[in-house]
Amino acid sequence: PGRLYSATHEEILGGWTTDIYFLKTRDVLRAAGRLDVPVTAEIFARQEGVFAGLGEVLSLLDRKGTDLAVEALPEGESFASKEVLVRIRGTYEAFGLYETVLLGMLASSTGWATAARRCVEAAEGLPVICFGSRHVHPAVAPVMERAAVVGGCVDASCILGAKLLGKDPKGTIPHAAILLAGDTVELARVYDGLLPEGEPRTVLVDTFKDEAEEALRVAEALGDRLSAVRLDTPGERGGVTPDLVREVRYRLNLAGYGHVAVLVSGGLSPDRIRLLAEAGAAGFGVGSYITHATPRDMTMDLKEVDGKPVAKRGRLPGPLPNERLKRVR
Amino acid sequence: PGRLYSATHEEILGGWTTDIYFLKTRDVLRAAGRLDVPVTAEIFARQEGVFAGLGEVLSLLDRKGTDLAVEALPEGESFASKEVLVRIRGTYEAFGLYETVLLGMLASSTGWATAARRCVEAAEGLPVICFGSRHVHPAVAPVMERAAVVGGCVDASCILGAKLLGKDPKGTIPHAAILLAGDTVELARVYDGLLPEGEPRTVLVDTFKDEAEEALRVAEALGDRLSAVRLDTPGERGGVTPDLVREVRYRLNLAGYGHVAVLVSGGLSPDRIRLLAEAGAAGFGVGSYITHATPRDMTMDLKEVDGKPVAKRGRLPGPLPNERLKRVR
Amino acid sequence: PGRLYSATHEEILGGWTTDIYFLKTRDVLRAAGRLDVPVTAEIFARQEGVFAGLGEVLSLLDRKGTDLAVEALPEGESFASKEVLVRIRGTYEAFGLYETVLLGMLASSTGWATAARRCVEAAEGLPVICFGSRHVHPAVAPVMERAAVVGGCVDASCILGAKLLGKDPKGTIPHAAILLAGDTVELARVYDGLLPEGEPRTVLVDTFKDEAEEALRVAEALGDRLSAVRLDTPGERGGVTPDLVREVRYRLNLAGYGHVAVLVSGGLSPDRIRLLAEAGAAGFGVGSYITHATPRDMTMDLKEVDGKPVAKRGRLPGPLPNERLKRVR
Amino acid sequence: PGRLYSATHEEILGGWTTDIYFLKTRDVLRAAGRLDVPVTAEIFARQEGVFAGLGEVLSLLDRKGTDLAVEALPEGESFASKEVLVRIRGTYEAFGLYETVLLGMLASSTGWATAARRCVEAAEGLPVICFGSRHVHPAVAPVMERAAVVGGCVDASCILGAKLLGKDPKGTIPHAAILLAGDTVELARVYDGLLPEGEPRTVLVDTFKDEAEEALRVAEALGDRLSAVRLDTPGERGGVTPDLVREVRYRLNLAGYGHVAVLVSGGLSPDRIRLLAEAGAAGFGVGSYITHATPRDMTMDLKEVDGKPVAKRGRLPGPLPNERLKRVR
Amino acid sequence: PGRLYSATHEEILGGWTTDIYFLKTRDVLRAAGRLDVPVTAEIFARQEGVFAGLGEVLSLLDRKGTDLAVEALPEGESFASKEVLVRIRGTYEAFGLYETVLLGMLASSTGWATAARRCVEAAEGLPVICFGSRHVHPAVAPVMERAAVVGGCVDASCILGAKLLGKDPKGTIPHAAILLAGDTVELARVYDGLLPEGEPRTVLVDTFKDEAEEALRVAEALGDRLSAVRLDTPGERGGVTPDLVREVRYRLNLAGYGHVAVLVSGGLSPDRIRLLAEAGAAGFGVGSYITHATPRDMTMDLKEVDGKPVAKRGRLPGPLPNERLKRVR
Amino acid sequence: PGRLYSATHEEILGGWTTDIYFLKTRDVLRAAGRLDVPVTAEIFARQEGVFAGLGEVLSLLDRKGTDLAVEALPEGESFASKEVLVRIRGTYEAFGLYETVLLGMLASSTGWATAARRCVEAAEGLPVICFGSRHVHPAVAPVMERAAVVGGCVDASCILGAKLLGKDPKGTIPHAAILLAGDTVELARVYDGLLPEGEPRTVLVDTFKDEAEEALRVAEALGDRLSAVRLDTPGERGGVTPDLVREVRYRLNLAGYGHVAVLVSGGLSPDRIRLLAEAGAAGFGVGSYITHATPRDMTMDLKEVDGKPVAKRGRLPGPLPNERLKRVR
Ligand SMILES: [Zn+2]
Ligand SMILES: [Zn+2]
Ligand SMILES: [Zn+2]
Ligand SMILES: [Zn+2]
Ligand SMILES: [Zn+2]
Ligand SMILES: [Zn+2]
Ligand SMILES: [Zn+2]
Ligand SMILES: [Zn+2]
Ligand SMILES: [Zn+2]
Ligand SMILES: [Zn+2]
Ligand SMILES: [Zn+2]
Ligand SMILES: [Zn+2]
Repeated sequence: PGRLYSATHEEILGGWTTDIYFLKTRDVLRAAGRLDVPVTAEIFARQEGVFAGLGEVLSLLDRKGTDLAVEALPEGESFASKEVLVRIRGTYEAFGLYETVLLGMLASSTGWATAARRCVEAAEGLPVICFGSRHVHPAVAPVMERAAVVGGCVDASCILGAKLLGKDPKGTIPHAAILLAGDTVELARVYDGLLPEGEPRTVLVDTFKDEAEEALRVAEALGDRLSAVRLDTPGERGGVTPDLVREVRYRLNLAGYGHVAVLVSGGLSPDRIRLLAEAGAAGFGVGSYITHATPRDMTMDLKEVDGKPVAKRGRLPGPLPNERLKRVR
Repeated sequence: PGRLYSATHEEILGGWTTDIYFLKTRDVLRAAGRLDVPVTAEIFARQEGVFAGLGEVLSLLDRKGTDLAVEALPEGESFASKEVLVRIRGTYEAFGLYETVLLGMLASSTGWATAARRCVEAAEGLPVICFGSRHVHPAVAPVMERAAVVGGCVDASCILGAKLLGKDPKGTIPHAAILLAGDTVELARVYDGLLPEGEPRTVLVDTFKDEAEEALRVAEALGDRLSAVRLDTPGERGGVTPDLVREVRYRLNLAGYGHVAVLVSGGLSPDRIRLLAEAGAAGFGVGSYITHATPRDMTMDLKEVDGKPVAKRGRLPGPLPNERLKRVR
Repeated sequence: PGRLYSATHEEILGGWTTDIYFLKTRDVLRAAGRLDVPVTAEIFARQEGVFAGLGEVLSLLDRKGTDLAVEALPEGESFASKEVLVRIRGTYEAFGLYETVLLGMLASSTGWATAARRCVEAAEGLPVICFGSRHVHPAVAPVMERAAVVGGCVDASCILGAKLLGKDPKGTIPHAAILLAGDTVELARVYDGLLPEGEPRTVLVDTFKDEAEEALRVAEALGDRLSAVRLDTPGERGGVTPDLVREVRYRLNLAGYGHVAVLVSGGLSPDRIRLLAEAGAAGFGVGSYITHATPRDMTMDLKEVDGKPVAKRGRLPGPLPNERLKRVR
Repeated sequence: PGRLYSATHEEILGGWTTDIYFLKTRDVLRAAGRLDVPVTAEIFARQEGVFAGLGEVLSLLDRKGTDLAVEALPEGESFASKEVLVRIRGTYEAFGLYETVLLGMLASSTGWATAARRCVEAAEGLPVICFGSRHVHPAVAPVMERAAVVGGCVDASCILGAKLLGKDPKGTIPHAAILLAGDTVELARVYDGLLPEGEPRTVLVDTFKDEAEEALRVAEALGDRLSAVRLDTPGERGGVTPDLVREVRYRLNLAGYGHVAVLVSGGLSPDRIRLLAEAGAAGFGVGSYITHATPRDMTMDLKEVDGKPVAKRGRLPGPLPNERLKRVR
Repeated sequence: PGRLYSATHEEILGGWTTDIYFLKTRDVLRAAGRLDVPVTAEIFARQEGVFAGLGEVLSLLDRKGTDLAVEALPEGESFASKEVLVRIRGTYEAFGLYETVLLGMLASSTGWATAARRCVEAAEGLPVICFGSRHVHPAVAPVMERAAVVGGCVDASCILGAKLLGKDPKGTIPHAAILLAGDTVELARVYDGLLPEGEPRTVLVDTFKDEAEEALRVAEALGDRLSAVRLDTPGERGGVTPDLVREVRYRLNLAGYGHVAVLVSGGLSPDRIRLLAEAGAAGFGVGSYITHATPRDMTMDLKEVDGKPVAKRGRLPGPLPNERLKRVR
Repeated sequence: PGRLYSATHEEILGGWTTDIYFLKTRDVLRAAGRLDVPVTAEIFARQEGVFAGLGEVLSLLDRKGTDLAVEALPEGESFASKEVLVRIRGTYEAFGLYETVLLGMLASSTGWATAARRCVEAAEGLPVICFGSRHVHPAVAPVMERAAVVGGCVDASCILGAKLLGKDPKGTIPHAAILLAGDTVELARVYDGLLPEGEPRTVLVDTFKDEAEEALRVAEALGDRLSAVRLDTPGERGGVTPDLVREVRYRLNLAGYGHVAVLVSGGLSPDRIRLLAEAGAAGFGVGSYITHATPRDMTMDLKEVDGKPVAKRGRLPGPLPNERLKRVR
């Protein structure tokens, strides 16, 4: 069988994922005698956001084992457009080759963390879970889940993502299991029997029947053992609307199942989250809004060469002050 | 030093990047005696696009070493919204756990290939190169570059990406090298001296001086040995416009450097490519348009269980015909 | 108990629904000796449409029993903006008092017929039924239903409307009956037992359960005796969408109920009709689009007084030619 | 001569304007033994508005002479979207057949009253008169005029409408009379001679001449006996604009006719009313804005059957509280 | 009394209206020994248009009496964006000082001619007259009228404008004369008595009375001697609309005055001209559309200095070919 | 050589630029015996603005040497839509012929002054210079420059314009001089040598090289003698952007040239001025925004004839009060 196309850790750390022109650059600079000149580089983003991905950057630079000095914004903090986020001092030789890698790590994690933060803010205290692994390549699924938690999500469903965060992975049961079982209630019973006591039971209620009907059937079957129903209504049935949440909530209350929470998922965005929270939803599973987040593009500029301020056309020469940076290395 | 957050190949193949609920599903279905029931699953996308990522899917399924039968659309072909792209038959046990992984592989590669194809079509035969590694996590940089080539890009600049494609990586010299050298012409001379004969020399001409002036200086310095100048004008200087391309082309011709091609990069999209090609650009380096492509979301539906057509609400039960699928396993 | 507020036939014919100023006009003109002067009046609409309401106008003018000569466009024909639709010659005394009444009759019937025509055209041969009585005052429900049939609808559900048209009223069973019965299938069985052989059985399937599930339940229960299911999904559940029609149609076919038609209703417009017909709907119940139609405002101008062309400012004096008018009195 | 198409009071009360499916429903429920089950029904509108039409509803229910208990919002009150407006308790047999009729009565009167209220609010104390009979079928002209007065209009011009409200009908003289007379001033003199002392004289001044010229001619002719001129300028002459009102007002004042009010009509809306009031208009005749008002669609839901809360999909089961309702029966 | 602020011919030709920096330029170039270097200059506009103003340019350059060679597009021809319109060869000393003056002459005449052409095209053969003197400073009124005739207008009303074109000035009578006379018909009679036989009589009919009424009064008074009425209805009365033109045309015909043309003026644009022509207007007086035309900005670039191609950044060095240019000097 | 097309002062004062119909009006009124009737005329504009052009009007009326009484708003004051700006009392004979001329003078100067004021307000105290002569005919260039200074501009570059204002003309050096010299620094040195001590040196820095580079070269060459650089970047290079201003400012400061101001020109509007001021620009050269200003159309109405209030349709008869008017004659 063929290999997977994603890069292994060794390949990344070995420079195999950098652009070839950095290798050429190294050769040219060596020939020009400029490779070991001390430089200052700064990284910034053109759009504001929530900073993430620094941990990986340091893991990589640490391995370079050199005299690099690094200042950076702490992960999870909001930053402004064009604010300096990372400043590296050292020889170009020591880190220049990794420009592509460093920027890619920061851009993707920061993009995901920023989108997650928007959802978390919209939920105003209600829990937001990231359901997005299926939208990204499995090699970066744990990177994405970690960034979502940096942005404020409460849990990770990807097993490795959870491990990286020192958490237990959280999740329930997909449509496929219900289809295989043939009936939601039947499956819910097996699930309930299997789960350790104390762990919350959440059942998906839009597979076969109208959600309101199925929610009541499941509640009747599991009684006090049921902690939540999840609505994930497909677009072909109108998606999850505030009216649907309100009615399921109302019918559950009317039938005496006030203890059963209504969780929602499927195409959620901060605006939808606000509307559904107001209608009674108690938690949110967000997929595409977080995972489709555009990478927060990062730019690394040389700002000092051999102690003198420089910059290419369009940039301000010399380091730019940012008192929020901390010395991290 | 800490670990990188991306998943290694072993972690992916070992199921560590799936969502925890697939593990629970396995347990529940085993308890319900439904784990070894034969099923048919189909994968489709809601939006049309250019199919890619199948190779990785097969690499994974191969390792599962079972009796799975797989039909699929060939990579690189365009598909319609909701067209069946992959059909898998076998026991749920054999592949169900990997739903998240399979969809993630297809969604990301297909998204990148689709965006690349749009650029390639706009270029009408002129070469398009993917310059996007810095926008994605290094773990998926080779995945992305490979997908861009499936979509029609001519070369890969990421070293590992090129290796996966059996090509030599292609590239030139970044702004940083010029800043370190202190003058574009000076650096161009060293670069020229270092490069093997026969390899094309392309020099970036927007670092220190107006592009038209710098292009003529470099052309004068390298003469017939110069194959191209690259314009990558920053937004702060108006970006690369059709007027700029037209003028640089005109001035090079007027000075007798008709053999020097004008390549462009920086914020290109299919519409920009069309305008710049018309103005005389001879090649395009595309970054964000390809790498920011939204993943082409994939859905996997169970369509048959134990020989009987099924489907959750909103989907049509039973396999849907698609004569374009090939038996790939 | 108080009286209803609508006007009886006697009140209308007796002039009680005209504006008071026409009575004053009569007195003033009598005092001025201008009441029995021969005049020509013309009626037109500012917007194009489908003409209707003429029958009532003639019923009224007939009762005035005088020497009025009337030319008019036949009911059901399309007309252009500002085209002359009715021309009346006689003394002002004989019909002037009824200007308000005549215009009101024509404006409302023409408005409804025009809207019905738009739906019928969109359905391209599939039947459109008017379900709109609940949107209008009961006094004009039969007027509206008659106009809808003039516009091309196939049937009337209002008992009196059907009688006016010499047809049998058509209809099925409302949500209320199903709610009272407590189950759709149960009610469908009673309904089937009660209906004369040969009359088609249509059952509403969105009251309690998901439409796809309920459609199959009802089809199973009634078998060959079921002629159609009706989808009237509430907005709270996403309304009736092309996807829903397509799926219900597909599932009925798959289960061997290809003979059961899928009828739709609920917020339909010509655009929705086109989309749903394409998805497999076989008939349409239209309510608000027809009944909310803006009255096609009519204007009556005096164009000749005592044989001389006149017109108020803004209008062209003298009768305007229209070869499509027929002498109807 | 043929009959009019509108329904007589006997036909309405006899159930001839209901939809045929309510008759079928009665038969089916009788066969199912569910016809005399006690139920609770609630009526609401999806859009906010000004409530009207209750009087007719009670006139009808009174004739059913049964034990129906009715709570309702008082006519003329504003209500919110989805607020319960009427609640009826009794057997379905006693009122279910009239669902179509009841909703039609409320929807049309409420639509008209709501539109009238918007105009009255815009006029900020200046009188608004409904001039709309010609836009509706004569059978509902008095229904519409009564609803307009519920909404805040000061007078009714329809003779029957005024009678229903216990008022004298109000009005002046149409363009036709002036055209027949051949000169506005001549007609104004006859009109003045005929009208009882003390009744206000209003003359229309846009039939033959420029409004400013005609207004001065009429004012000169009638002097202190003239109370108002009315501007109803046709669209072909630019309609009634703030500039026109301002100038006529100015020229009347300049010539010493400050006591003559300027009334306006023709295509008025709340926005136009605000502009014209500011320009000096003293009263407004509104036609299409009120009569073209979309019926305020009403929905009647069964909320209790045999003492148990019910509701179809999409609605909340059981009665919904509304403290503003009064017991009216 | 003070002087007028416009420049006299002597001041323009003497260089008093150039920018001071051209004087400084002369001094600097003299000091640098570059004043008598031969150069080639080209003039172009960024937007397409109709070329005008060349005559004045040549009048000025002729006076410089030097060896300037000039090629140019003929006046009245359409040109494309960036097309070379004028090419001048000679020493900078001979014409450089007049750059501002030359560009100003061309930009203003070309702007006016372009706008006039748009109106003339819309009129499809019906005459367009420029009524625009009151919108511009009197010093340029004849420049503007001449440009409008270059663009296609048939006549000039400005006395000096007509003289420049070798035409008799054309015009009628303003509102002021009618206001002074106190009655349109009265004034029309005096005007008719005074005008030489054979000259057409056009009377303005919107001063005191409704246009339709006044048109008929004037036609009655002057009979066959009246050639046209002019509608110039103020915005306060709705402006001149297609409906108004149609009605006046209709009423004149009906009364036997088919020989009286209907001319229109007041806020006309190409779109209005098209609508009014279709409604029966026979001629158009255009003011603001022509006179408010944005000057067609002209740019003069040095393209050769001492026989060598040059250009500032952003322009193509060396003369650009244009076969449509004629040698005019 | 031919004549220029603009009118000389003699032609303007002699009435040669009025419309021919005023001559006809004079003849007709003389024949009607109405020429020496005393009248009151008022001038107003439909749009608000900044008043200018009065000086020329008075220069003209003074020459008429009659008993005209004139009240007017002072030049430079803001006025409201339809506010009376000038009131003239006298015989029509004495000024009526000059209606076209008077309105043209006021409309053009007021249009330019209004636009200039918008720019000056946006600059919030920083100097705005009018660079617009090349956009207008040279005959009105001084009229335009004077109006711009009335509107708030600080200087005039047109020699005659400056003279009219009693100022020295201000300006620097155009692109042409630099192109002729072949190098910006070379030309700057000559210019510096030639200019009297004490006069500020401003050098244009976008002709040959990137602005940041050229600004530093010029600053180095002239040192303390340089007062400002001007950025006039062509659209083909992205125009003058806030980023460009900010960077040139930053690089000048960094190199110790904090005393060198950054002036900007090229397509400026109030919005651009605000953005560039914020980025560090110290002065603004505005061309098209001021010179392309639509003339502020003026209307002159006769409001009294022989002591009696009159007005054409659409206007209010009699003088309208305005306490801001001053008696100026
Ligand atoms: Zn996705
Ligand atoms: Zn679902
Ligand atoms: Zn990016
Ligand atoms: Zn660059
Ligand atoms: Zn309705
Ligand atoms: Zn329904
Ligand atoms: Zn109407
Ligand atoms: Zn009217
Ligand atoms: Zn104007
Ligand atoms: Zn006029
Ligand atoms: Zn311009
Ligand atoms: Zn420039």
